Amino acid sequence: MTRVRIVGIGCHPGQLTLEAREAIAGCDYVIAADKGPDDPLLALRRTICADLGVELVAVPDPPRDRDDPADYDGAVLDWHDARAAAYGSVVAQRPGTVGFLVWGDPAFYDSTIRVVERLGVPYDVLPGVSALSLLAARHRVVLHDVGRPVLVTTGRRLAVEVDAGHDNLVVMLDGRLQATSLDGDWDIWWGANLGSPHEELVAGRLGDVVEDIRTARARAKAADGWVMDTYLLRRH
Amino acid sequence: MTRVRIVGIGCHPGQLTLEAREAIAGCDYVIAADKGPDDPLLALRRTICADLGVELVAVPDPPRDRDDPADYDGAVLDWHDARAAAYGSVVAQRPGTVGFLVWGDPAFYDSTIRVVERLGVPYDVLPGVSALSLLAARHRVVLHDVGRPVLVTTGRRLAVEVDAGHDNLVVMLDGRLQATSLDGDWDIWWGANLGSPHEELVAGRLGDVVEDIRTARARAKAADGWVMDTYLLRRH
Ligand SMILES: C[S@@+](CC[C@H](N)C(=O)[O-])C[C@H]1O[C@@H](n2cnc3c(N)ncnc32)[C@H](O)[C@@H]1O
Ligand SMILES: C[S@@+](CC[C@H](N)C(=O)[O-])C[C@H]1O[C@@H](n2cnc3c(N)ncnc32)[C@H](O)[C@@H]1O
Repeated sequence: MTRVRIVGIGCHPGQLTLEAREAIAGCDYVIAADKGPDDPLLALRRTICADLGVELVAVPDPPRDRDDPADYDGAVLDWHDARAAAYGSVVAQRPGTVGFLVWGDPAFYDSTIRVVERLGVPYDVLPGVSALSLLAARHRVVLHDVGRPVLVTTGRRLAVEVDAGHDNLVVMLDGRLQATSLDGDWDIWWGANLGSPHEELVAGRLGDVVEDIRTARARAKAADGWVMDTYLLRRH
Repeated sequence: MTRVRIVGIGCHPGQLTLEAREAIAGCDYVIAADKGPDDPLLALRRTICADLGVELVAVPDPPRDRDDPADYDGAVLDWHDARAAAYGSVVAQRPGTVGFLVWGDPAFYDSTIRVVERLGVPYDVLPGVSALSLLAARHRVVLHDVGRPVLVTTGRRLAVEVDAGHDNLVVMLDGRLQATSLDGDWDIWWGANLGSPHEELVAGRLGDVVEDIRTARARAKAADGWVMDTYLLRRH
């Protein structure tokens, strides 16, 4: 009776794939986390659902301890449980085909799959264009040298990875531009609010462009009211 | 007068994004490498161009030394030069907006950006859904544990990366299932010909499913006439 479709939507409405559009249009309704009145991700989901004539049910997001709790993994699991409980009660009341629209691609730094798994209903996943693909496209770069690897990681782990010898990394979830604490000579390809009309791009030798990045980041935040950024970092 | 648009097309026609469709439809023509009569990637491009009413100009692909030449990087660069020369002569004869359709996402293991750069004309890049995103979606997994990294690499480098301590990797460009030579206890999420009607999926403990993968790989090849596979490998 009830099934869930987890749909990657990319970073702006033009990045919806044809199959994603069809999947969303075929849903009875879409559930979206509501993180507060200015939630930019909710706004994009509303636009998409309105376009496709599908009802959006906004579910207040359970509070999450963001203050770097000692038990980080445990806090994440608790939060997944709380989200699953909130969604589960909606789904129990309204059987049908239920959509979840995931920013970018569900495969990278997103909890939707893990939360939906807890609902115990059948579900499938459609991929989307990740922010890291959009970053590479905007800078017109391949994410690695020919035949070489790329490590996708977080700001929190960047220093550890570099100590371990990595010299080609994509960094997500970094609100503090951790790259500025690194030693050595690095090239950076940075982008904020990719896909928004106010997106910002900066590329160059890290030491030369740090101030440009800070300025651009502040500009994106002022223009959009929110900022998300990601970057490719390669030893020069 | 002439500009190039490099467009990621995903792994099947339903994975075209709206902006990719519009970009292709707006091209005067599309250039596609022709690797021989049974080139599956050329066939998909023909379908897309026919759908969108855009002419496709097939350019015979310069031969590439695939026998693992000692000077691998040099051989790649020569091949990029040869491709650029072939495309350059087409573009010189027919100015206009020229499209290149890239399988998956141009950001991963693709030479189109590097080749087009050599043409010396303005160009932009639109991202697409990579095979690695599709792999994750089909297996309904996130490519890393919560807050952890993922290394994207090639079959050729897999053993080296594992020796260096990596325990969560996506492997592309591996015609020989190099994972089978690894020591240790690994989980694998494998997929071949993803997006084709004959796609194959296998997941499990590596030691338990190696034969299933070999069988599925042969089945995909028999059904489609070609096989491309990729996998996520995580230490158990
Ligand atoms: C929770 S993760 C979700 C990633 C998403 N699933 C994807 O595939 O892009 C959020 C992080 O992704 C990156 N990100 C997402 N959208 C972005 C955008 N439009 N511009 C720049 N970075 C973005 C940022 O690093 C941000 O901290
Ligand atoms: C030259 S690379 C191109 C990758 C492409 N740019 C992308 O983003 O998917 C080709 C490799 O990608 C992977 N691949 C591409 N398409 C695939 C598919 N449909 N199914 C499984 N693997 C695929 C395989 O590992 C293959 O060896």
